[in-house]
Amino acid sequence: MTILTILTSPDKPRPAVFDRLGDDAEVRWVEADTLAAALPGSDALLMWDFFSTALEDAFPTADRLSWVHAASAGVDSLRFRRLVDSDVTVTNAHGVFDQAIAEYVLGVVLMFAKRSVESLELQRDHVWHRRETETVAGTRALVVGTGGIGRRTARLLRAFGVDVVGAATHARAGDADFSRIIDSAHLGEHLSSVDWLINAAPLTDATRGMFDASVFAQLPSTARFVSIGRGASTKTDDLLAALSDGTIAGAGLDVVDPEPLPPGHPLWDAPNTLITAHLSGDTEGWTDRLAQQFLTHWDRWVAGEPFPQTVDLRAGYVPSET
Amino acid sequence: MTILTILTSPDKPRPAVFDRLGDDAEVRWVEADTLAAALPGSDALLMWDFFSTALEDAFPTADRLSWVHAASAGVDSLRFRRLVDSDVTVTNAHGVFDQAIAEYVLGVVLMFAKRSVESLELQRDHVWHRRETETVAGTRALVVGTGGIGRRTARLLRAFGVDVVGAATHARAGDADFSRIIDSAHLGEHLSSVDWLINAAPLTDATRGMFDASVFAQLPSTARFVSIGRGASTKTDDLLAALSDGTIAGAGLDVVDPEPLPPGHPLWDAPNTLITAHLSGDTEGWTDRLAQQFLTHWDRWVAGEPFPQTVDLRAGYVPSET
Repeated sequence: MTILTILTSPDKPRPAVFDRLGDDAEVRWVEADTLAAALPGSDALLMWDFFSTALEDAFPTADRLSWVHAASAGVDSLRFRRLVDSDVTVTNAHGVFDQAIAEYVLGVVLMFAKRSVESLELQRDHVWHRRETETVAGTRALVVGTGGIGRRTARLLRAFGVDVVGAATHARAGDADFSRIIDSAHLGEHLSSVDWLINAAPLTDATRGMFDASVFAQLPSTARFVSIGRGASTKTDDLLAALSDGTIAGAGLDVVDPEPLPPGHPLWDAPNTLITAHLSGDTEGWTDRLAQQFLTHWDRWVAGEPFPQTVDLRAGYVPSET
Repeated sequence: MTILTILTSPDKPRPAVFDRLGDDAEVRWVEADTLAAALPGSDALLMWDFFSTALEDAFPTADRLSWVHAASAGVDSLRFRRLVDSDVTVTNAHGVFDQAIAEYVLGVVLMFAKRSVESLELQRDHVWHRRETETVAGTRALVVGTGGIGRRTARLLRAFGVDVVGAATHARAGDADFSRIIDSAHLGEHLSSVDWLINAAPLTDATRGMFDASVFAQLPSTARFVSIGRGASTKTDDLLAALSDGTIAGAGLDVVDPEPLPPGHPLWDAPNTLITAHLSGDTEGWTDRLAQQFLTHWDRWVAGEPFPQTVDLRAGYVPSET
C-alpha cells in the first residue's frame, strides 16, 4: 500500500478533508522528532509544517520517497544537497498565495503614499490637519522575482498606473505583466529611478543577501523597499542603516532576518518601517486552500498523471513561472 | 476689458502660472470679505478658495457674471437659489481628483482587510504575532455615486477582483465600470451582501443624510463604510452608534460632519474608524493641476469655445458623468 507521511507541528490545523487520504494510502502524521522514523517505506511526503527544516536530517532514512509537496511558495528549506541531487519530484503551493500577497504589497504602498501612519497619529491626538499625500499613479516599481507572486503584484500596481519593471535571472523585453524584465545580476544599473523596490524573489544562492547597502545607496532617497519574498535576501544591518540615515524613505517588511524578529531587535523601531509577522499570504481560508491544492495534486499522483508544475530545486522555484 | 475675479483665502497658494491671466483680463484677487465689492463688472469668477460659502451672500452684486469655476469636485456650496436659477455657466474640477481619491479608498480598504492598525500596534510592542488577515478579491462593493471619482474607484476595486455595483439616480444594467447600477432611492434592497459601502456621491437634496441608521442596520455586521463624498451625506450620530455597537465593522472617513471635526468629538475615538482631514484628493502637485485645468478652461472661454463639460447645478453634478 502507498504510504504518505505528513509532517505537521502542534500549532498546525489538521483539516478534516485530509481524512479521505486514508482511502488510498496509509497516512503517517508525524512531527519533526518522529520524521526520520516515519520516512522508511514512505512514498510521498507532505510538508504541512512548511517552515520545518527537519527534512534535511531525516532524509537519509527515506528509502522509496518519490514526491515531496511543500505547502508553501518558498522551497528554500528543501534545497539541501541530498534532495536536490535525488530523483524526488517536488511540488509547492504554486499560486495559492499570489493574490493575498500582492494585495499586501499594495496595502503597504498605499500606506506610504497616503501617509497613513501619520494620519493615525493625528487622529489619536484629535487633530484635523489637512496636508498633501502622494499619488501612486505615475510612480515606478521594480519587482525582483517574476514568479506568480511578483506577477500578480505587478498587475495590481499597473492597475494603479505604476510603471513596473521586473528583475529575473534573464533579461528580456516584451512581457504581459512587466514593461520589461532586467537581469537581476545587473540590478544596480536600474535603481536610480525606482520609487518602489519590491522583493518577491525566492531565496537562492543568487538572492541571499542581495538587498544590501550598495542597493539601498543606489535608490533615490524617496524610495521605499517592500519585502515579501524571504528575509535572508536582505542584509538586515544594511537595511537598518539605510532606514536610519535616510538613504531610503521607508520599508514594508513581511519577511525579515531573523524570524521571528526578537523583541529587542532595533528593526522594530526603525523609522518609516512597517513590520508584519510573515503573514501576508495567510488570509482567511488559506489553510483550506492549501489542503485542497494538495488533494488535487494527490489525486493526480494516485492516478499516475503529471503535476501541472513542479519545482526545479536546483533553481529554487517553479521554472515555468519566470 | 474682461474682468476675472478670483476668490482666495490667506492659506491658499497663488500659482505663478495665473500671472498670464492678466494678458486677457483685469484680474481681481479677493477674499471672502471683499467679494461683494469685486463682483460688479466681473465676467468670470474663479472659486480658488473652493470651501468658501461667501458667494451666496455676495451674489446679488454680480451684474454681468457669466461663468463660475469651482476648483473642487463638489459644488454643493454653489447650489443656492439665485445661482441655480441664473444663466451663469458653472464648471468644476472634473477629473482632477479621481485617481487620488480612488487610491485613498483602496488604501482604506486594504488597511481594514490587512488589519494594518493592529499590525502597527503589535510592531510598536515588538510582538511577532502571525495571524490571519482578509483577501479583498471576491468581496463585494457598493459605490454610491457614479461620477468620475466613483468610476475610478470601481475600476481599481475590480482590478482586485471585487464585484462592484454602482448606485445612481437611475438604475441600469450593463456599464463599463460597474457590474450593474442600482437606483439610489432603493439602496436598502441591496445592502445585505455588501462588504464595502462607499460614499462617492455629490451632496444634493437626495444624498443629504442618506447614510443613516437604517442603511447601517441593513449592512452585514462585517461591512465597512468608506466616505469620500461629502460629510453631510452621513448622519454622524447614526454612524457613531453603528460603529460603537458593532452594527458595522468599521469606517474610513475623509469627509465628516462637521468639518473640521472638533477635538472633543466622539467620532475621533469610534472603534475601527480611520479619519483624515478631507485630504484624499490633495496629492503632491494638486494645486498645479487645479490651476492648469482652470487655465485650459480660461483659454476656451476667451476663445468663445464650449467647455468640455459643465455642472448641472440643479442636479448638483456634471450630468455626463452619471
